[in-house]
Amino acid sequence: MSPGCPWRRWMARALQLAALAEGRTSPNPLVGALVLDADGTLVGEGFHARAGEAHAEVGALAQAGERARGGTLVVTLEPCCHHGRTPPCSEAVLAAGIARVVLAMADPNPRVAGGGITRLRDGGLEVIEGVMEAEARRLNRPFLHRIATGRPLGILKWAMSLDGRTALPNGVSQWISGPGARDWVHHLRARCDAMIVGGGTVRADDPLLTSRGRRTPEPLRVVLSRGLDLPAAAQLWDPAPAATLLVHGPEAPQDRRDRFDRLGVERLALEACEPAALAIALARRGCNRVLWECGPVLAAAALHQGCVQQLAAVIAPTLLGGLPARTPLADLGLENLEDGWSLSEAATGWLGRDLLWQGAVVGPT
Amino acid sequence: MSPGCPWRRWMARALQLAALAEGRTSPNPLVGALVLDADGTLVGEGFHARAGEAHAEVGALAQAGERARGGTLVVTLEPCCHHGRTPPCSEAVLAAGIARVVLAMADPNPRVAGGGITRLRDGGLEVIEGVMEAEARRLNRPFLHRIATGRPLGILKWAMSLDGRTALPNGVSQWISGPGARDWVHHLRARCDAMIVGGGTVRADDPLLTSRGRRTPEPLRVVLSRGLDLPAAAQLWDPAPAATLLVHGPEAPQDRRDRFDRLGVERLALEACEPAALAIALARRGCNRVLWECGPVLAAAALHQGCVQQLAAVIAPTLLGGLPARTPLADLGLENLEDGWSLSEAATGWLGRDLLWQGAVVGPT
Repeated sequence: MSPGCPWRRWMARALQLAALAEGRTSPNPLVGALVLDADGTLVGEGFHARAGEAHAEVGALAQAGERARGGTLVVTLEPCCHHGRTPPCSEAVLAAGIARVVLAMADPNPRVAGGGITRLRDGGLEVIEGVMEAEARRLNRPFLHRIATGRPLGILKWAMSLDGRTALPNGVSQWISGPGARDWVHHLRARCDAMIVGGGTVRADDPLLTSRGRRTPEPLRVVLSRGLDLPAAAQLWDPAPAATLLVHGPEAPQDRRDRFDRLGVERLALEACEPAALAIALARRGCNRVLWECGPVLAAAALHQGCVQQLAAVIAPTLLGGLPARTPLADLGLENLEDGWSLSEAATGWLGRDLLWQGAVVGPT
Repeated sequence: MSPGCPWRRWMARALQLAALAEGRTSPNPLVGALVLDADGTLVGEGFHARAGEAHAEVGALAQAGERARGGTLVVTLEPCCHHGRTPPCSEAVLAAGIARVVLAMADPNPRVAGGGITRLRDGGLEVIEGVMEAEARRLNRPFLHRIATGRPLGILKWAMSLDGRTALPNGVSQWISGPGARDWVHHLRARCDAMIVGGGTVRADDPLLTSRGRRTPEPLRVVLSRGLDLPAAAQLWDPAPAATLLVHGPEAPQDRRDRFDRLGVERLALEACEPAALAIALARRGCNRVLWECGPVLAAAALHQGCVQQLAAVIAPTLLGGLPARTPLADLGLENLEDGWSLSEAATGWLGRDLLWQGAVVGPT
């Protein structure tokens, strides 16, 4: 669609509606919809608020009522044609008497994948595709990544001093960044389905790992710990603020497994205690986007195993020094500078006195 | 002076003139001057181009000639009242028949320090002080720092990956930053009187360490090496591109001293091979501003010994990883995060794909 397409302004509004539920629809995508009557007047709006609840089209059509007849449905994603937790939206669109459907993109879900569009055209509706498709894909990048790869989109986050330290030589790390940056991290968590740490972070920092109420329910807190060598008491074992999933390898001794079962902490045994296996397991649980908030060894492994698509580095204007002090990433096995990971789409901004550097991670080619 | 002061626009021009010689006047300050005739018309401009050459006032007065009579001299620094390499400017101002002198700041040089102002007032001239004084002080911060402390103002510079590495685990470090950042470093060197590296940098990188012709003569290249354990062949030993000063401690064996004497490399033996002693020696040689381009151990020592006032960190959008990989700073002996060095006046900008983070270094309080 050209920039002059008359539907762009309505699709922009539908994308705004879709974004209202960011971080809350997984495993579903974000979808927004609106209905114009036969004269082009806005008569209904809707968005998909949460998995299991009504799809965006249904809400917009319900609001429009009889005024939808002969009108136009503008929706960010192809209406579904299958019975999931809700009936197929393509049937609801036909039943409402809509004459034209304007779409940003087809649904890559193999159960839809153009079937909704076919059903609408077979029903005699005009279907216009591809309006603001790039924007719609960007909005649903985590969902699209999971559908395409079977893994959630991964964001690796760290906070370091300007000389690249994530802790002092004595291990002290709270807080390197300031309150503005920590508040931003809480908002970032609210857009994610899970946060992942390793056992070392639990032992060193005893993190609470929540969005501080910015998402309800809180994202899943995930601990990846090969042998379950973890403290008996930790904030993460308290289910009141948020659920925790304890993921371990086959080598975890039975007595430790039993201990956490008695504590009531959900446990998942992987065949191999690796980031890639964890990512697949989390995708199966419906996670579209996960946040790696781990130490250098797990972070390097997650990068190596293709689990990281985006980076969010908070850089504090401090110098901590210390050759043995913790740094963001353990060995990546590089022999040449050209072989390193790099960042594209780099963007920076200030979070109080701290700098936030975000970008898309591009692996060695 | 208030922002509405009528002399501000002329002082701004004088400061621009002064800045034209940035990096070339040491040990002298940067000074710019202009002359307005009795009607307020600009009739002369001048700046101090290099130590030993004419002072700014003299050039502006020469350009103005007879039209200076009854006019105003606007100058960024108090005219001198002593015979140095050139005669006292206060006498030249009186001789030219100037009626009014507008100053940004007094000269902190103990041989002047208000004496020039007194001489002018005694001669019957109106003297207006403090116009754009903050800007003038900022422009001459390196000179003022040397006069106040007996050491040059130090800038610590490094280039690192986004995960805080200045080299790969195998030592490879050329080039972490891109051509835009390297070009910027050449410009930075051109504003400095000397660049300092340690022996490790000579052994690992064999740097050329010049401004690539952006300053004539090139800044002094300084190697601080306790025991002169240095390669026999290195780009720094070639005097053609720039002069090199080899600084060592009392422990340097005589045969190594002899070797460098035979090579014709200038040598300076310190009583203690420490950054602070080197800084004092460089101030005595007339260095106002020096650039520390050294590895983590020397950088940490320079910070510790108060030799670093500003930081310029280039951060490349790459991830290199590797726990044994080189990082910017060795141990600073910190036990608490609150005790760290921090940066004020932080400012960032892009040098191609690399981020430049500059700031003033604030030590532990």
